[in-house]
Amino acid sequence: MNLVVLFPEDFVSERSVRLEGRRKEHIANIHRIKLGDTLQVGLLGGKMGSGLVVALDKEAVEMETSLLQEPPQKLPLTLVVALPRPKALNRVIASATSLGVARIIILNAWKVEKSYWKSKRMNEANLLYQRILGLEQSRDTVLPDLSIARFFGPFVHDELSQIASQTHRLVAHPAATAPCPSSIEAPCTLIIGPEGGFIQDEVQALEKIGFSPVSIGSRTLRTETALAVLVGRLYH
Amino acid sequence: MNLVVLFPEDFVSERSVRLEGRRKEHIANIHRIKLGDTLQVGLLGGKMGSGLVVALDKEAVEMETSLLQEPPQKLPLTLVVALPRPKALNRVIASATSLGVARIIILNAWKVEKSYWKSKRMNEANLLYQRILGLEQSRDTVLPDLSIARFFGPFVHDELSQIASQTHRLVAHPAATAPCPSSIEAPCTLIIGPEGGFIQDEVQALEKIGFSPVSIGSRTLRTETALAVLVGRLYH
Repeated sequence: MNLVVLFPEDFVSERSVRLEGRRKEHIANIHRIKLGDTLQVGLLGGKMGSGLVVALDKEAVEMETSLLQEPPQKLPLTLVVALPRPKALNRVIASATSLGVARIIILNAWKVEKSYWKSKRMNEANLLYQRILGLEQSRDTVLPDLSIARFFGPFVHDELSQIASQTHRLVAHPAATAPCPSSIEAPCTLIIGPEGGFIQDEVQALEKIGFSPVSIGSRTLRTETALAVLVGRLYH
Repeated sequence: MNLVVLFPEDFVSERSVRLEGRRKEHIANIHRIKLGDTLQVGLLGGKMGSGLVVALDKEAVEMETSLLQEPPQKLPLTLVVALPRPKALNRVIASATSLGVARIIILNAWKVEKSYWKSKRMNEANLLYQRILGLEQSRDTVLPDLSIARFFGPFVHDELSQIASQTHRLVAHPAATAPCPSSIEAPCTLIIGPEGGFIQDEVQALEKIGFSPVSIGSRTLRTETALAVLVGRLYH
């Protein structure tokens, strides 16, 4: 937790916050803060700054905050990612958030097992929590937009063209022969398929609306590792 | 498990293997293979190919193997990484292996907590297991070399110059002003510091033997995420 994300309800006065629960435990037990220490804090969706610890007991920590700094810029990147297996979902969401992805869309695909959609990790509270973890990691306060595209066909036909308009359109595809371009530094819509990849029909549907299949080499990487490699390549 | 890594002791005849335990369970329960299916397999340190399932019961799976393919090339990259906290260590080792890092050196630093060195995850069996997981992920058979540099000063003064000779020398450092170079496609020794970074004395000791501090932006990333971003930037 490199930055403590604050919520409006944490504020007990204009500048004072009182935290209990997970954040308090983490601050007390991992950071081992003492009275008078300062921590990096930021208001969800707002400015960042410092929190001076003014009270600390078994139940809560209280801080005087000073929030003057703008959060870091997002990458101009929309990630469309096939729903990963539940164990991987949390890592993908938190990691994409920490990298500064502006918008995340979780997509269905032929090779996504139906049972994944029923995972309890797909509930809204968890999808919010994983993004908060990503913000805490990378010192940011602005949640990436997150939405669900439960049906591949309708989403690709009716929505994706619009979402991807005026952006580079790339689909990471192990079988692609073109390498992923480097340092585009421009808005991009990046699609990452499921374990086992998109089927040919899906790739063709994406190509039809202007997506280019690109490869990052012969190694099969975990979704969140592939995403970080792609971000490292696309943006400086 | 995109490739089943085989050990010499798995072979019951020249081409037949018999697997029990973790790999058998994974193949049976996650891949849900049947008699007559083929899986991608590879001999540790050797060639890769296919395994035809010829027997399958509660205890074991047997395959007829055909190993003709060379494993993928490694990146010409030596990763020197400050020992991460135990929870992160496994991810860093497996992820670096999957990315194709040729050599991993785990280094001490001022901000590495002493207790991390006593973690049971630092035992040889676990460090081997995490690399096997990385090979299974990325379809490779060749273990990256892994060694431990328990003392920063002696390692940097006596060994690192030699290890890094004839390579690009980069230290990922959040406070650096120079961006990480792009597409070097050449041998590189890359150092990643601990949570909280290297202290100034450590950075100076590294600069003295030719390491350039480079940044990948203002966001603080997990070690394995930063590594993947750096690999994406350095190599195509």
